Order: sequence, then C-alpha cells, then structure tokens
Amino acid sequence: MSGNSGENEAPQSAVLLISCPDRSGLVAAVTTFMAERGGNILDLEQHAEESSNSFFMRLEWDLRGFAPSLEDIAREFEPVAERFSMKWELRRRDQLARIALFVTKAPHCLVELLARHQAGEWAADIPLIVSNREDLRGVAERFRIPFHHLPVVAGNKPAQEEAARALMESHRIDLIVFARYMQIVTGGFIRHFPNRIINIHHSFLPAFPGARPYHQAHERGVKVIGATSHYVTEDLDAGPIIVQDVARISHRDSVEDLIRKGRDIEKLVLARAVTAHLEHRVLVYGNRTIVFQ
Amino acid sequence: MSGNSGENEAPQSAVLLISCPDRSGLVAAVTTFMAERGGNILDLEQHAEESSNSFFMRLEWDLRGFAPSLEDIAREFEPVAERFSMKWELRRRDQLARIALFVTKAPHCLVELLARHQAGEWAADIPLIVSNREDLRGVAERFRIPFHHLPVVAGNKPAQEEAARALMESHRIDLIVFARYMQIVTGGFIRHFPNRIINIHHSFLPAFPGARPYHQAHERGVKVIGATSHYVTEDLDAGPIIVQDVARISHRDSVEDLIRKGRDIEKLVLARAVTAHLEHRVLVYGNRTIVFQ
Amino acid sequence: MSGNSGENEAPQSAVLLISCPDRSGLVAAVTTFMAERGGNILDLEQHAEESSNSFFMRLEWDLRGFAPSLEDIAREFEPVAERFSMKWELRRRDQLARIALFVTKAPHCLVELLARHQAGEWAADIPLIVSNREDLRGVAERFRIPFHHLPVVAGNKPAQEEAARALMESHRIDLIVFARYMQIVTGGFIRHFPNRIINIHHSFLPAFPGARPYHQAHERGVKVIGATSHYVTEDLDAGPIIVQDVARISHRDSVEDLIRKGRDIEKLVLARAVTAHLEHRVLVYGNRTIVFQ
Amino acid sequence: MSGNSGENEAPQSAVLLISCPDRSGLVAAVTTFMAERGGNILDLEQHAEESSNSFFMRLEWDLRGFAPSLEDIAREFEPVAERFSMKWELRRRDQLARIALFVTKAPHCLVELLARHQAGEWAADIPLIVSNREDLRGVAERFRIPFHHLPVVAGNKPAQEEAARALMESHRIDLIVFARYMQIVTGGFIRHFPNRIINIHHSFLPAFPGARPYHQAHERGVKVIGATSHYVTEDLDAGPIIVQDVARISHRDSVEDLIRKGRDIEKLVLARAVTAHLEHRVLVYGNRTIVFQ
Repeated sequence: MSGNSGENEAPQSAVLLISCPDRSGLVAAVTTFMAERGGNILDLEQHAEESSNSFFMRLEWDLRGFAPSLEDIAREFEPVAERFSMKWELRRRDQLARIALFVTKAPHCLVELLARHQAGEWAADIPLIVSNREDLRGVAERFRIPFHHLPVVAGNKPAQEEAARALMESHRIDLIVFARYMQIVTGGFIRHFPNRIINIHHSFLPAFPGARPYHQAHERGVKVIGATSHYVTEDLDAGPIIVQDVARISHRDSVEDLIRKGRDIEKLVLARAVTAHLEHRVLVYGNRTIVFQ
Repeated sequence: MSGNSGENEAPQSAVLLISCPDRSGLVAAVTTFMAERGGNILDLEQHAEESSNSFFMRLEWDLRGFAPSLEDIAREFEPVAERFSMKWELRRRDQLARIALFVTKAPHCLVELLARHQAGEWAADIPLIVSNREDLRGVAERFRIPFHHLPVVAGNKPAQEEAARALMESHRIDLIVFARYMQIVTGGFIRHFPNRIINIHHSFLPAFPGARPYHQAHERGVKVIGATSHYVTEDLDAGPIIVQDVARISHRDSVEDLIRKGRDIEKLVLARAVTAHLEHRVLVYGNRTIVFQ
Repeated sequence: MSGNSGENEAPQSAVLLISCPDRSGLVAAVTTFMAERGGNILDLEQHAEESSNSFFMRLEWDLRGFAPSLEDIAREFEPVAERFSMKWELRRRDQLARIALFVTKAPHCLVELLARHQAGEWAADIPLIVSNREDLRGVAERFRIPFHHLPVVAGNKPAQEEAARALMESHRIDLIVFARYMQIVTGGFIRHFPNRIINIHHSFLPAFPGARPYHQAHERGVKVIGATSHYVTEDLDAGPIIVQDVARISHRDSVEDLIRKGRDIEKLVLARAVTAHLEHRVLVYGNRTIVFQ
Repeated sequence: MSGNSGENEAPQSAVLLISCPDRSGLVAAVTTFMAERGGNILDLEQHAEESSNSFFMRLEWDLRGFAPSLEDIAREFEPVAERFSMKWELRRRDQLARIALFVTKAPHCLVELLARHQAGEWAADIPLIVSNREDLRGVAERFRIPFHHLPVVAGNKPAQEEAARALMESHRIDLIVFARYMQIVTGGFIRHFPNRIINIHHSFLPAFPGARPYHQAHERGVKVIGATSHYVTEDLDAGPIIVQDVARISHRDSVEDLIRKGRDIEKLVLARAVTAHLEHRVLVYGNRTIVFQ
C-alpha cells in the first residue's frame, strides 16, 4: 500500500545543458550527434526566446548500454559546440553533489533539507553545516552532520568568510545552500561560487527585499505572502530566481501567523530549488533562469 | 442537473459594520442590543488586532419578521456606539448599489463585470460606462449600458475629471470601478470618492507598481505573476488592498503570455473585490482592509 | 500602459504531433528531416513514458520563409513515419477551427468562450450555438451568433441528435464544446466526433461524477471543489481529462456558494482546454492525454 | 532579521465549542454570560447552517486576569447550555495534549510532525510512536521518542490492537495520528477513540480511496493530485474531512513522481489538521467538520 520508500537511486544518465544564439538546425545537430553514438534520449527540452534570439536546451540520455565515456563525448562534441557558439555543460545524474548548509537559528529549512537527504531524495552528500550561531547544533548532531560555528562579530567578517571559504574548499563543496542564514555575505565570498549559492528569501521578490519581510507584508496589508529561492549575487535579494510560491492570508493573520505560515512555503520552495539544481535543470542567463521540467 | 441559475436575489438582511478600540464586553453589548429587538443574527464575524488594540465587527441579521425600521435601529444604537467610541455603518443587503465602470481598451474586465451583473450576481445597477477611448463602445452597446467617451488630451484633464465627477453625481454613483482604466486620476477627483473607487492593478503589489508590470515581471524573471484590487488613494498603486491572487509562470512564458495569463487573474480578482464591497464585507483602517468572509 | 490588445494573430507555423513506440534515434530522425528542409523549429516537446514504452512529440516550426507546402511535407514524411510506426498529424496554427457551442441555461461558460473568441484569442470561428432550451438565446444574439433550439423531450432524442449532427456537418464543425450542456448524449452521436467534443464537468473527477456534483461535495464535506474538462466518450464523465483546477472552500459555504465559486473555475478550466486543443497541444492515448505546454 | 524562533507558547486562553439548533438570541446569551464574568473575548466565530437549522460557535477568551476557574465556568454555564439544548466543550489552550503517532515505513509525515513538535509549535507531548514495522525506529531514536513495534501478522491483529489500546491508556493519549500508518484498523479499536484519530489519505477524497491512490490517479490521467486528513471512522477513508490540499501535475509525471510530489502535500495537510485539532478549532457534526479559523 505504501511505495513511498523514498530510497530513490539517482538515474544512470547524463545531462547536456546548452545555451547559444538561436539558429536553424540546432536540435537536429545535437540529436543526430547523440543518435550516431547510440544514445537513447530520455528527456529533451528546448526553449527559444525570440526577443533575445537565444536558444536553450537540456538533453538527458541513458548511460545503461552506452559505450562512450563522458570524456569521449565531451571531446567529440566540441566541434558541434563551436559551430553553433554554444556554452555547454555535461553532467552525470548519479554523481554525488557535495552540499554545505549555512544556517542561523530557524530550524525548519534545515530539518526539511536534512530529512530529504536522509530519505535518499538527492544524489548528494552534506559533509557540513556552517552557522553564525550555536542554536542549531542539536539538529546537526541529531542528523550526524558536522557543525561548524563561525560567529560573526564586529570586524571579524573577512576572517570568518575566509574560514568558510577554506572549509568549502577542503570539503570540495559544489553547492552552498543558505537555509535561512541571516548574515549578509560579501561579494568577496560570493564571487568564488557563481550560481552555486542558493538562498531562500521569505517574500515573493521583488516585493519586500531586505530585513523583516513578514513585518513589511503585514504593514502593507497584502493578501498573499510568498517565498523566493534564488542564486546569490552581489546585489542583495536580487539574484536569478529559481522557484517561488505563495500562500493566501487574511486580516486575521498577525505578523506571527505570517511567520508561521511562511515557514511551510519557505522550506518547500528551497527544497524544490535544490532539487532542480541537483538534477541539472537550471540554466542561468542574464539575471533570469531557465528551469527545465 | 444545473442549478446555476445565477438569478440570485439579494438577501433581505441588514449589515452593521463596526470599528473601535478593543474592550471587554463589546460583542455582548452589540449582540444583546440585537437580541432585545428580536433580530436573528445570520452571520457575525469579529476581529481584534492586539498590536493596535483595535476591534472590528460585521453583524448581519435577518430583516424578515424584524419589526424596527433601520432608522429606528440607527437612532437606538447611537448610545451603544458612543459608549464604545465606535465608527459604524448600517446597510441593507437588498439595496441596489449604483456602479460606474471606467475602462480604456482591454475588454476582459469589463465583460467579466457586465456578465456577472447581467447574471444577477450583484445587488447593483450599472447606469454608465466611462472611457478615455472609443474601443469598448461596442461592448457597452452589446450589454446596453450607456457609454460616455471622455478623451484625455494635453491640458484637458481637469475639465474631463470635472465632467466625470458631474456624471457620477447626476447618476448618484456609489461605487466607481476602474476596470483596466489606463489613466492616472488626480487627487482632486479621488478625494470625492474615499474608499469608493476600486482599481485592478496587474501585478501582486507592492511588486511592479506603475506602468507595464508584465514587462517588469518578465525582465525580473519571476516565477509567479499576480493581480491586486485595491481602493484608489492619492498614492499611485498604494491604496488599501482588497483581493490578490497569483498564477504560476515559467521561463517559457513571453511577455505576451504573461499578459494573456494575467487577464484571467485580473478579472477574477477585480470581480471578487467588487463582490466583497457590495456585500459590505470590507472595512478600511489605516492603509489596510478587513475583508470579512 | 495597456498592451492587452487581445487581438492576437495566430502564428504562421505548423505543428506535427507524433505518437509511437519509443526507440533510439526518434528525435534525431524527425529533427533532421526538418533541418534538411530548412525548417526553423520554434518549439519541440517530447515525452517518453517508460512504463508503456511510448513516445510522444510535438514539433512546431516557422512557416515564414519555409518553401515546401504542407502537402509536400506530409508526403515526404511518410517513410520516416513508417519506419518508426508513427501515428501522426500535421496542422497549421493559422487555420481557423470551426467550433459549435452546446449550452443549456447557465451563461457563464458561454459568455467566457464568446468573449475570448471576440477578443481574438483563438484562431477559430463559432458559426453556431445549439441548445435544448431557449434561456441563452439572448446571449447568442448579443454576440451575434446564430442560435439553434433543439429541445429534447420524451422520444425525440434520436431525431434531435440527428438534427444536431446534420448541423455539424453543414457547418463543417471541427470541435464541439459542451459549455454546461445539461443533456446526456448517446454513443451514436459521440462516435461521430472522436476526441472532438470537449465537456466541462463541475467536479474534480473522478470525484462526484453524474448529477449535482456540488450537492454531493457539500454532503461529503470536502474542503476543495474543482472542475474538469475532458473529451466526451461513451462512458459518462469518464473520458480523457484535459485540464483540471480546484478552489478551496470551507464549512461556511452553502451549496449555493459552491455553485457560485465553482462557476469561476468551470469557465477557466473549459477555456484552457479549448485553447490547448486549438493550439494542437493535446494528444490522446488510451484514456489519458498528453497536454504539451 | 529572523523572528522565526518557533518557540511559541500556547496562549493562556480558554475555548468554548458549542453546537445546537439555531435560535434567536444564542450569541447574545453566550457573550453576555462571558461579559458578566469579565471575560475578554479574543476570538469569536459562529456559523449557522440554514439547511439543517444548526448553529456552531467557537469562543476563545483571555485567562489572564480572569478570576473564575474553568470548573466554575462549566457549572455556571450549564443552565445556559440547557436552555438552548447545546452540546458543548470547554478547553484550555495551554493544556498539553498527549499524542501517539502511528507509522509504517514512510518517514516524511513522521519527521514533519516531530520537527514541529520539537520546534514548539504545538501545546502537546508525544510520549510514543507505534509501528507495525521497524523501518522508522531510527527516526524515533533521533528525536528521542520511545518506539513500540507491534507487527501485525496473520491472526494476531486483535491482540496487537488490544496492546495498542493498552498503550494509549497507560500513556493517557488524547489524540492518535496515523502518519502514513499502512494497516487497516478494526472498528473495535476505532470505537475507543471517536473523533480522536486523525488519518492522512494520499488522495483528494472521495476520489481514489483505498490502496495505491497514486497508481489510480496515474491510471485515470488526472491533472491534479491531493491529500486528505480526516477523522477515522469505521468506514474506510470516509470519515469527516478536516483539511485537503492539492498539487498540479502533468503527463510528464510518472507514478513515482506523483508519490514524490504527493509527499509534500501529505505532510502539510496532516500537520494542518493536527494543528486545528489541538487548537480546538474542529467541530464534527454528522460526517462533516466545522473548522474555525
């Protein structure tokens, strides 16, 4: 009756992500390349944006019974890519991403991510949690993830960011997730991880950026609240949006109610963004994202 | 099998709307007042906002078999109201409101409102449509509503607003609805109709106020679009919000797609706000609304 | 500030819809075929269902500057189709579909469809409205669409269905829409229009099929109501589902409230299904649909 | 910037839940009773159902500075209740409910409930978890809740249900939550806990009752999936519904995708039902619920 085992295994497949100027024959060139090598296409999604003459594509193919190595594929694909001026990436679905979680004191996003990880939803390892406070050490211990306390006080931010960066490097981190990390991070740190830091902001951006968005929302008297996950850029709360969702509220809701109802949206919106990123479904172009389904 | 007659009759009931400082004994005082006169309460909803120590109440009672006239009720209620420093209004549900619709060239909101009116959803008359363009005269004629063309060109806005105001007066208009009226109206006009002009803005305010919100939304790369109905105040797109709703979008949606999908939200959000207003469910306090259910 | 012109023109493009057993090389074969003829692909979406080993594809390409006629394309595509055992259809986006609307007495779906048609949202003509009652003749006249009254009484259903069928034939109807048509239609009629009759049922099927779904919903005490558009098959309310949507309700809602709130969902769900059908985005397989985006 | 402490304290207030035949003067009688004792009403919501002539009310008042004991209130209220033939309950908001969680092997609902409990969202204790399998013992240990394994095999169900019942009694359990408990429970057990067992069913009931609802949903080709929390009665999946919610799906979703997406709805729908129950917002009448806001 159940089925909900949750112990998914990552599919044995590879993903090719492409962006380039739109041109006739693009899809045919790529799919023929794959057909000639016996690649069975599991999923293909493309998107052409007329206004910017841009082309985007995600191609996933089966690696079971597929002879060429990804290194061979990459080398052989190079001439095709050059012909169409493509920017491209090649990824295995079953290669474990290494994620670092940054938190402060709200547990809901952290528990949501750890529970999904533990349930086997993601092809990922979470080797560490970083926090500027001690509040969530207990949660980290309960899920047996090493917890690093890097408190930020007057004057020590550069040193602590450098310490964090070193941790990322020594743990070979692929993706940083700010799971309600309530510290403003400098451009110096962010530039090391372009499109590799996902944040959750507790409003439907661009409404209510910055501090205390639920207080702002209550003050403005909106009838809908939301949450936004986005890649972190040097512009606060202005990076490329990955996932947004909302919930209806009413005058009956106090600020505390908004905070409570908001938590349910925040944690799901953040988890969906992480899932999309890990499945190589997100392409950033300019300040926007393509999120393939 | 149907039932959808749509020919609702307005209930023979009266509504008392109250706002005042919160205090013990308020609900008892009002309900006892009503019980002593044999009023059968059909619906009572109250809301106390702790942070501002404010109290709000909507009481609807049956007029069938209810002897006192509303004039008597109003006179007798005065001492109760004074005791609690109440601001209050008394309304009949079956008294026809008189609505003026202001439009420009997009037909979807206009048709939505006229179709609901024609189907008998509202206890209202719509004696006229005002427009700064001729585009929708055909729609007005189809629904047999007089259409007034008041074009706004350089320098004539004061005169045209005065003409509109005179029309409102001569038609004894209770409620003005901007059904995608694409003209900025001056404070001089607005001040005549406090909390009596409802606008539909095609974004989830406070995001994307002003012109071309769908273009702004596309540019920002949001994953959700919305619409907001609000009372018009002198601050553009900043008045008290009555109803908001949203729709999910994706990178596949061009600006034109957003405009098309947005129309479905706009017309429903506007219609719901008009319904709430006509059923005397909306209380404005400060720049926010209480919308009783 | 507006932009909402609504006067969309149908794109000058063609659509190829394919379903067949899944096999390696399918996408490459089709896209190469198109590339060799200089076809610029505007949109390609494919779907492989592993459990049934089925493959589905929708390919839309630009006809501007595309030399071959669709007849040529069809002839030349035949060998490709045969090789992969494809079932396929070829359609122009700018060819006007001819729609007949069937109604009874609820106006909301009818007005919604006519308003969209009038606003130019669809590449379609609506040459007639058929009804078993007279109630909506006024609406038809207001939109200047011929209205045919075919009352169904004891014993005359076969004759009236034959009359309706003849009307469809003489008006060369491509699509029939039951816009709250409250008559059960026999298999004899339905078999003439396979996957060409769209119905709106006022529940989230398979919950509450048959008569008076809102009464059933109220009786069961559900917290959500819905609407379902589907192709009509000989099994009542059991045909392939195209679009569904829902609205939240509460114990406060009477049956009449459900009917009223339901109308907003019904009309949008039906309109979306008609749009998807007209844009050649729907593929039926078994009793399910693929609805390409 | 945060605020999300989560360490809510239960309000020091009391709740009076009333259901009775509708009659004039009901609200006044109750609110006057409270005013005479100096009770400050924090929230009052009433609902009259015309079709059944029923009246329902939830009154919450402040206990800070309120002299009478709840025992006194109960005794003094008795004559009022008798006069109106009321069924009524009196509850403190800050009295800890004692909850038992029943699970099988899916962890998502269990983790959701435990995380909320741990974050202090509920005025509740969770003294034990019961399961027919061992799978989730690790989760229980991580949250330090005693785990009782009561496997059900051929012939031992009566004995195991009796063991479970004894556990409920010895732990003075007020509420049982089936958090994806995949065992059919007999009437003998259920009758001990009328309206005190909450189940989560993974479909929008009444669609897809019984086993494997996501498989049924996929087979039927619905475009929306849902989850339903309800009180358990002797009719399988047919008890009074407390909360329902849905998510949109498409043809792209396999059964596994439905299961995965469904988990997010299930856990939130179940948590909301538990919250409503614990805050004394749910009244059962017949097979339906009133869920006060």
